[in-house]
Amino acid sequence: MKIAIAQLNYHIGNYEANTAKIISHIKQAEQDGAELVVFSELALCGYPPYDLLERKEFVQHALKAVELIAQSCTTVAAIVGCPELNPEPQGKNLYNSAYFLAKGQIKQVVRKTLLPNYDVFDEYRYFQPNTTFSLVEWKGLKIALTICEDIWDDQPVANAFSRDRLYTLSPMQELAKLEPHLAINIAASPFSYTQVDIRRNIVCNKAKSFNVPFIYVNQVGELVFDGNSMVVNANGAMVAKAKCFEEDYLIVDSETLTMSPVIEAEPTDTIALIYKALVLGVRDYFQKTGFKQATLGLSGGIDSAVTLVLAVDALGKDNVRVLLLPSQYSSDHSINDAVALADNLGVRYDIVPIEPIFSQFNEALSPLFVGKEANLTEENIQARVRGTLLMALSNKFGNIVLNTSNKSEAAVGYGTLYGDMNGGLSVLGDVYKMDVFRLAHYMNRKSEIIPNNTIVKPPSAELRPDQKDSDSLPEYEVLDAILFKYINQNQSPQEIIAAGFEEATVLKTIRLVNMNEYKRFQTAPTLRVSSKAFGMGRRIPLVAQL
Amino acid sequence: MKIAIAQLNYHIGNYEANTAKIISHIKQAEQDGAELVVFSELALCGYPPYDLLERKEFVQHALKAVELIAQSCTTVAAIVGCPELNPEPQGKNLYNSAYFLAKGQIKQVVRKTLLPNYDVFDEYRYFQPNTTFSLVEWKGLKIALTICEDIWDDQPVANAFSRDRLYTLSPMQELAKLEPHLAINIAASPFSYTQVDIRRNIVCNKAKSFNVPFIYVNQVGELVFDGNSMVVNANGAMVAKAKCFEEDYLIVDSETLTMSPVIEAEPTDTIALIYKALVLGVRDYFQKTGFKQATLGLSGGIDSAVTLVLAVDALGKDNVRVLLLPSQYSSDHSINDAVALADNLGVRYDIVPIEPIFSQFNEALSPLFVGKEANLTEENIQARVRGTLLMALSNKFGNIVLNTSNKSEAAVGYGTLYGDMNGGLSVLGDVYKMDVFRLAHYMNRKSEIIPNNTIVKPPSAELRPDQKDSDSLPEYEVLDAILFKYINQNQSPQEIIAAGFEEATVLKTIRLVNMNEYKRFQTAPTLRVSSKAFGMGRRIPLVAQL
Repeated sequence: MKIAIAQLNYHIGNYEANTAKIISHIKQAEQDGAELVVFSELALCGYPPYDLLERKEFVQHALKAVELIAQSCTTVAAIVGCPELNPEPQGKNLYNSAYFLAKGQIKQVVRKTLLPNYDVFDEYRYFQPNTTFSLVEWKGLKIALTICEDIWDDQPVANAFSRDRLYTLSPMQELAKLEPHLAINIAASPFSYTQVDIRRNIVCNKAKSFNVPFIYVNQVGELVFDGNSMVVNANGAMVAKAKCFEEDYLIVDSETLTMSPVIEAEPTDTIALIYKALVLGVRDYFQKTGFKQATLGLSGGIDSAVTLVLAVDALGKDNVRVLLLPSQYSSDHSINDAVALADNLGVRYDIVPIEPIFSQFNEALSPLFVGKEANLTEENIQARVRGTLLMALSNKFGNIVLNTSNKSEAAVGYGTLYGDMNGGLSVLGDVYKMDVFRLAHYMNRKSEIIPNNTIVKPPSAELRPDQKDSDSLPEYEVLDAILFKYINQNQSPQEIIAAGFEEATVLKTIRLVNMNEYKRFQTAPTLRVSSKAFGMGRRIPLVAQL
Repeated sequence: MKIAIAQLNYHIGNYEANTAKIISHIKQAEQDGAELVVFSELALCGYPPYDLLERKEFVQHALKAVELIAQSCTTVAAIVGCPELNPEPQGKNLYNSAYFLAKGQIKQVVRKTLLPNYDVFDEYRYFQPNTTFSLVEWKGLKIALTICEDIWDDQPVANAFSRDRLYTLSPMQELAKLEPHLAINIAASPFSYTQVDIRRNIVCNKAKSFNVPFIYVNQVGELVFDGNSMVVNANGAMVAKAKCFEEDYLIVDSETLTMSPVIEAEPTDTIALIYKALVLGVRDYFQKTGFKQATLGLSGGIDSAVTLVLAVDALGKDNVRVLLLPSQYSSDHSINDAVALADNLGVRYDIVPIEPIFSQFNEALSPLFVGKEANLTEENIQARVRGTLLMALSNKFGNIVLNTSNKSEAAVGYGTLYGDMNGGLSVLGDVYKMDVFRLAHYMNRKSEIIPNNTIVKPPSAELRPDQKDSDSLPEYEVLDAILFKYINQNQSPQEIIAAGFEEATVLKTIRLVNMNEYKRFQTAPTLRVSSKAFGMGRRIPLVAQL
């Protein structure tokens, strides 16, 4: 059977656009002689809908849309992810379901069994878990249809406790008893640079363990979902693969999978993947929120430089303009480096010196600050003057301020709330500083777009004379390694020290992370590229003593 | 049997303080001749610990502490809430458990069956649900011990879907088969002014349905937990009750409960309860984050006035200082009203006119804004100048800025991000505007603390000449009613219109709510007093089309 794989980008709650996109791919599949076309998890409403699933009209809209789509399935059948009302009077409102549409009708509905409820996932908040198993049969082909997490029953348990398995049930094991010819999994599986190969291995292992060919259909778009849909033969070898970070559409023949040539795993360039994820993330966030233009403050430092290149690659140079906001503490080279980058990219820039406004703040506050020395307060005022100028540009011209903070800074609170932490979107908030450097080198791989001086000079906030990041923070090589273990791997201070890091540095770093939860609570939404980003996927109580 | 009820305030992660507090109450109960003392849900680690439960050292600390506490239980037994490691290699890491401590040991561990995973609750993220049932037996007394949600199996399903029950299992029904003499529920049940009587009815109904006396032990503190622990006889009548919003300790005799006089339900003054909840919330947030002093901007309007009274009642007048930040658009009466309030409360105030700073911003931006008319941009700059001045005071003197926005404003986005939305804690962010007026009247019930003029004048942001809230928003009576239906009751636009509200007003209001999710994403943590506050308990994707 010819089966079409539709790896698409869906917009949460935009039923008109999602429905049109799904129907157009059903028509395409029909034209291409496919007998089945597969869309991804909750494709119809978009993922993750979160508490929109508690709005009855949101779900009703989905149910109407799936009926409409069913009518398009006259010759070709389709599998579409969509919420389903729980028909039982007890339990959660909904199931997370895969609708099998054929002959103009909803022929069958398959429900998700394993509901992820960790990191950014809150599925148990909305969905009742499935407990019964049956195959989908279409033109003699018996399909084991599962939804995303259903095949992750034997995932490595990525937490600090020694556990074998997160789940006590294996949907594929149940379905295998029914002797399927083919397995299909529809997914909304986000990218993480820390687990590039894990998903592929899971799909390949499932195919091999149950000796069944496997079609895996993921989506693309903001969160960030990376696509990478794949087809695996019954020996567990990959025979087809969709693009990463782009919509894609491909057709496979389920009968010839065993004869198809095997695709070897591509060499993984983590930095290139992060770059692609961030470009997609920025572009998609703007498209889905209805904005076209971005602004940011260009300091001459590496974080704003890398953010600007990403913004230009995502939105186009004419849709980005920047402000240079020098103070009396800004070095000449900072301004020169910023100007050189803007010129290299062909981006409009304006220079607004902040010193006159900063002075006015100091003057206004001087009666209150009599006898007090200048300290962090005055540094923060500078950052807030900059943040206010950027927001003024944003308000006047209707663009979004891009936050330029990196994950290392965000982790230790090296940033000013309502100042340089401003922004509608944090582009680098899940990228540690050392990876920001690597991104800069990657961006310069063909020619020097980011001035070399921006990359090689010691990082500095330039909020007082001769300030350097290393005055108050460990070197970034060390800092990032500690942060990765603490935040991404949930290691304890004792484990990190045992791994060879200096105790004082570890304890200081961890103290900084814990005492700055309040700043991150108010931080901009952050593009997620690792297994543990700040934001929805990491929930720490603010009043805790740690 | 004499049983002590310890209704205490626990600090998340502060094992030293929580352990000491628990042990001291065990000693007290011993002295008082009690044979059992009951503490509340997850008392030992504090509630809600959220992702701290994913840190192994956090859980290990709890396990050590409970062993230590067990040693104090020589003559008296204790029930203490504490996480438990899941001994099985499959499933979630932990159980949410009640430890029964007696004779110096952990005698028995009872696990929570129903795990709330809605609103602010994420328990399924961490805990495996219990599936087996047994009683705790102590000196011949057979106790049906449950944890919080376990008795909420037949709660009214407060969502938009027509559902009978959220859960398919009733722990009390299972335990009743074992013929207990007494039921005990340990809880971490937050206050909500929208469901004051529901909890009491649930406890009373359980007692009556299963014909068993019932001891319900809640906690107090930030979130906000309101206490209101209670004892109900086997007829479902309340015979003892702990204080609301305060720590309390009481002793009951399980054998004489049926003879104890029945306590009638007190008349409920919702506004008085909200007042108490907010005072406790502010005080507790400061204590637990290690701060003593607060500041806020006093505008002469009602929101900042009510916030100031709450801050003074929570922290004391010497721990609060305010800034008056008038602009050229501020009316004289605003300054007079603000000064009068500060004087009435004996709070230090300073006046910092913002016009010189505002002018400097305008001047700096004028080359960029050539040909553009003054609009919301300039209004936002004023708000951000004020926000920056408040943060400067906060930074210099180490106090917390209290955010003064109310829930109606927060809902429709009537506030400036990084401006008047600044703050370490939002005091009124879960209080609709009409209730802010009611709070002001309540505060003035004995004498005029808040100047009458502040209460009676039309609300205005005073960011341009003669501005009034009603220029751009519906009247607050109407606005609040629509918002309550949409946000707290999850009603659809159609349902709200059908209830008699003008269609255009409903649609405009809902549009404003939906288009301002991005502002609320970066808002200060908010004291929760209703069943649906902004923040952790309400999760709306920012990129959705609604």
